[in-house]
Amino acid sequence: MVATEQPLLQPFPAKSSAVESALSSGNGSHNPEAFRQALNKVLYGRSFYIPSFDIHRGVSGLFDYGPPGFNVKSNILKLWREHFVREEKMLEIECTCVTPEVVLKASGHVDKFTDVMVKDVTTGAPYRADHLVKDYCNEKLEKDVTISAEKAAELKDLLVVLENLSIEDLGMKIKEYGITAPDTKNPLSDPYPFNLMFKTSIGPSGQHTGYMRPETAQGIFCNFNELYRYNGKKLPFAAVQVGQAFRNEISPRQGPLRVREFTLAEIEHFVHPENKSHPKFSRVAKLEFLMFPREEQVSGQSAKKLCLGEAVAKGTVNNETLGYFIGRVYLFLTRLGIDKDRLRFRQHLANEMAHYAVDCWDAEIETSYGWIECVGIADRAAYDLLAHSEKTGVALVAEEKYAQPKEVEKLVITPVTKELGPAFKGNQKNVVEALEAMNEEEAMKMKATLESKGEVEFYVCTLEKNVTIKKNMVSISKEKKKVYQGSFTPSVIEPSFGIGRIVYCLCEHCFSTMPSKAGDEQLNVFRFPPLVAPKMCMVFPLVKNQKNQKNQQFEEKTRVISEELTSCRIDHDIDIKGISIGKRYVKSDELGVPFAITVDSETSVTIRERDSKDQVRVSLKEAASVLTSMAEEKMTWQDVWVSFPHHSSHSSPAADE
Amino acid sequence: MVATEQPLLQPFPAKSSAVESALSSGNGSHNPEAFRQALNKVLYGRSFYIPSFDIHRGVSGLFDYGPPGFNVKSNILKLWREHFVREEKMLEIECTCVTPEVVLKASGHVDKFTDVMVKDVTTGAPYRADHLVKDYCNEKLEKDVTISAEKAAELKDLLVVLENLSIEDLGMKIKEYGITAPDTKNPLSDPYPFNLMFKTSIGPSGQHTGYMRPETAQGIFCNFNELYRYNGKKLPFAAVQVGQAFRNEISPRQGPLRVREFTLAEIEHFVHPENKSHPKFSRVAKLEFLMFPREEQVSGQSAKKLCLGEAVAKGTVNNETLGYFIGRVYLFLTRLGIDKDRLRFRQHLANEMAHYAVDCWDAEIETSYGWIECVGIADRAAYDLLAHSEKTGVALVAEEKYAQPKEVEKLVITPVTKELGPAFKGNQKNVVEALEAMNEEEAMKMKATLESKGEVEFYVCTLEKNVTIKKNMVSISKEKKKVYQGSFTPSVIEPSFGIGRIVYCLCEHCFSTMPSKAGDEQLNVFRFPPLVAPKMCMVFPLVKNQKNQKNQQFEEKTRVISEELTSCRIDHDIDIKGISIGKRYVKSDELGVPFAITVDSETSVTIRERDSKDQVRVSLKEAASVLTSMAEEKMTWQDVWVSFPHHSSHSSPAADE
Repeated sequence: MVATEQPLLQPFPAKSSAVESALSSGNGSHNPEAFRQALNKVLYGRSFYIPSFDIHRGVSGLFDYGPPGFNVKSNILKLWREHFVREEKMLEIECTCVTPEVVLKASGHVDKFTDVMVKDVTTGAPYRADHLVKDYCNEKLEKDVTISAEKAAELKDLLVVLENLSIEDLGMKIKEYGITAPDTKNPLSDPYPFNLMFKTSIGPSGQHTGYMRPETAQGIFCNFNELYRYNGKKLPFAAVQVGQAFRNEISPRQGPLRVREFTLAEIEHFVHPENKSHPKFSRVAKLEFLMFPREEQVSGQSAKKLCLGEAVAKGTVNNETLGYFIGRVYLFLTRLGIDKDRLRFRQHLANEMAHYAVDCWDAEIETSYGWIECVGIADRAAYDLLAHSEKTGVALVAEEKYAQPKEVEKLVITPVTKELGPAFKGNQKNVVEALEAMNEEEAMKMKATLESKGEVEFYVCTLEKNVTIKKNMVSISKEKKKVYQGSFTPSVIEPSFGIGRIVYCLCEHCFSTMPSKAGDEQLNVFRFPPLVAPKMCMVFPLVKNQKNQKNQQFEEKTRVISEELTSCRIDHDIDIKGISIGKRYVKSDELGVPFAITVDSETSVTIRERDSKDQVRVSLKEAASVLTSMAEEKMTWQDVWVSFPHHSSHSSPAADE
Repeated sequence: MVATEQPLLQPFPAKSSAVESALSSGNGSHNPEAFRQALNKVLYGRSFYIPSFDIHRGVSGLFDYGPPGFNVKSNILKLWREHFVREEKMLEIECTCVTPEVVLKASGHVDKFTDVMVKDVTTGAPYRADHLVKDYCNEKLEKDVTISAEKAAELKDLLVVLENLSIEDLGMKIKEYGITAPDTKNPLSDPYPFNLMFKTSIGPSGQHTGYMRPETAQGIFCNFNELYRYNGKKLPFAAVQVGQAFRNEISPRQGPLRVREFTLAEIEHFVHPENKSHPKFSRVAKLEFLMFPREEQVSGQSAKKLCLGEAVAKGTVNNETLGYFIGRVYLFLTRLGIDKDRLRFRQHLANEMAHYAVDCWDAEIETSYGWIECVGIADRAAYDLLAHSEKTGVALVAEEKYAQPKEVEKLVITPVTKELGPAFKGNQKNVVEALEAMNEEEAMKMKATLESKGEVEFYVCTLEKNVTIKKNMVSISKEKKKVYQGSFTPSVIEPSFGIGRIVYCLCEHCFSTMPSKAGDEQLNVFRFPPLVAPKMCMVFPLVKNQKNQKNQQFEEKTRVISEELTSCRIDHDIDIKGISIGKRYVKSDELGVPFAITVDSETSVTIRERDSKDQVRVSLKEAASVLTSMAEEKMTWQDVWVSFPHHSSHSSPAADE
């Protein structure tokens, strides 16, 4: 992605009925702010996120992942690698974050990766110009009952195009509306571009400017020749990279959605520009999901359910490979637990796309902040490889054998040595080399002069002087030749995943709250699918009372189960806090752990499922293997439920606690 | 780690017999340079490493991992997480690389994370001062036959202490030996410290200096309170982080061993300072391996095999927890494929350790570059938590209940309101607060004055004036109290892994070359253990000839096996290049892939093991499950070898090719 495409909150915040009901089922209120408050209480209270370097007061826009947040993120990446990298045998590589300036000059980031900034003329406080205009419009529309229908329409239109306004237009709007600095009401400076890259200096001399990469893609483009060779010179192939990227945001807002450092997972799929069919497209062609083509956006309609195969057939989606990735992204996100009714694929408007891009679709997920771009899927044509090729002089091309030989005209320069020898003697070699080195334009000009005048003055740079070339000394012609192979610059289709945004959106979609049975407190649950949850299970030894002999036995059994789970590679935790099992379930649900094993006897345990709250009784020996079967997706909870005796919590020793 | 401990090549390059024989068995030569040349040809030729941004000519000290290098690294990290994080239920977190200056001020990096630099006085070219002195010593010792035994001894001694020389001493040595700039022979500047952190600016105002973190540990220390709370306020516990770290090296040398950006995996184990026993120490106590205690180094002996349990019992290793981690690191590295005879644990010399460190051991691996520090295992006491606590004013402590209540003396200040009221009226509250706010020293001084003089002048800052306090207005005493609980700053035991160094050292230990049967070429093999290898297996369809019908059938079967392997999560590749199976084996061995499946019939395949070159014949249907059993370590190759019919390559259709 380059500057024109950088992710922004999309100006389509109209709440669908799906999000409304999710919000209301979530916390009994239609208020996204209240929903977010309840969510944040858990996200920060249970250390999913920690503001970075908080004890030092840190800086805004930097967040750490605490233990459960890290685990969710890490599980998402594990599934990502399975779903994309292993499935398609993609080549995964790892490039450095520190990037020399010349690379980002070539890619366009040094010149164009900017946001528009204004400053408070008195205090110097910086603001993003588009944010101020956006806030002004929203506030007017929400709070000013006096504005005319005409004015309201103008502001709404402005919100839609805001992202693509020029610096000059942004400046005019700020003047026209009399927008001032929000904190001081002071006047604002004229807007100017601010480069979003973190700048540094490489090496001790201070001569090599470097930047922290704003995306991972450029490292892949620079390595194209190595990767193409590694792949046995076969196309198409894809290379991927997962890693940190950095954007020095002017004024980060929206918590973990807009941060200064984040994890990207980018796929660069290299394909022949004249053949973008995909052998596995048929596997996704029947999928139906919410798509939001350009036309629907421009004509004020909303996203609608389309069949992917038809969208490609009709040309709504430019080609099969782009369509294949859109389908695979849909399958990936819904497998994680993203609600398919709050996921749409929005096509970029013509003026949103870079001039070289063929087609581009964003996977957007609806949250309490509105629709958030989480994945961009773009056909970028040959732009990136050509840009690096131009700057370096290194060809970044693939080779092909033609099915039919092609006829091409080729320049042929034949120096006639028997004439050149006597004329130039010891200098003959220099003259011959200079003649052969002429490009087409120079050669054809010489040919014309020789034909009209019989001779020509010719500068031989290795001799540092002009010599006279006569007509009989060189033959210049263009000949038709059959060519059986050639080279071309591959097109790049790029699905680019903002992993941190996906983590946050997933947390929103999986979160819900409900009152406790007694009605005295609010219970929080993350309904993460088992593969994504921070842990697969918790293990609780029943604690009778401090002096009870059985406590030790239960703890001993707990240790045995835990070691078995570890050897089966099942992530789990033990909670031996002497509070009731019921309270431990509440804590475990709040973390989103799908299963809990309670050790309440010397021979058997109960296994409880988070969402149904159902429990089965399983022998001590079988406990770890039941969990392993579910972790490896060989068994579902439904299978377990029909295979083992049910256990009612009311009859359980746990209920005594 | 802070500056004084940063990893350096250790000055103990004496080759052991183990490395000599490895080098000679490797390439038939005792020459480490030749060994490295052969290794590098494969490492760069097969894209394990790619110099970063090579087409742009890049900058030195930055390397990318190409596909096979990435896979080896990724498998090492997977095993690392299993061996440490899952086994000990450590808390994994992820902090940002961008770090505000205040954090690294507190940790000491802004002031002390430096190398000593000199410049060519004419060209300004920068050099590391210790490198120049080291090169001078080595060259003299190797090439100058005229130097006296006395001088030789002096230079050898200097090499040993070089790492700990002060700037002044380095400057004196450079002057004394007349060392000049290596490229120009120009004189050198006086040496001065150069900070190794990449500096940047956070936010648009330019007011917030930031650095790219030089290690991951500080993020964990800053989050101690969150993690302690998350862990249910129980000690000991460990938090870990894996991520990029950055050091702006003055002049990087030694390829991927000294780079400007690298992956660290750091464990911070928090433990009670008065109880560093470890419940699982007995599991590693019987291990024996090469250790190199301080005394042996100082007295010129070499590393020797010690029993870990005895080393802890005798106090050679300071405590059980430190010893436990040393043992676990040994098990981890040897499981990866590091040769135990070229691995030693070297204790830091007294002057090598930071003043606050209790004990520190480096896992060093012997390579063609000498002994390389790959893991540092340090007991850092309370230093890091105290440093951040002091700077922020935030207590970073754990709580404890005492087994026996402790008796402590407490200051008690009791203002007598019935005397103060009439004397100060409306100001009474200010006076009371000021009296109660006195610290112990102030209070005891007032008590003494009141007792000797009966009254005292006392400044009340909220009134901004002195008042007169009389003896009857306040009672000051010290009382003995029983205290049942308290807080303390935990000690930190830190195993810190340089993952990139481990990757490179593993490549050296696994690499060997041998002449082909025909003797006409050199064959290269990486003997990576299956869990670490870039891929688990290759799949080769036999290619009879271009027109053969069977080719299609073989390719179809290959596709089926590949899909089965994918669904079993086995990383593999298909090679359908129309060259002989023998040549495909050679290519696969060179990548270090342990198994190859050759599809040479419609009903069965052969499976070949890399190191023995043995082959078995297995039915098409069983192929994927045999590989899966080996990948999950449920079967070894030995098990497979006794379970399936053997296949001789001479009787195979493959041999026809």
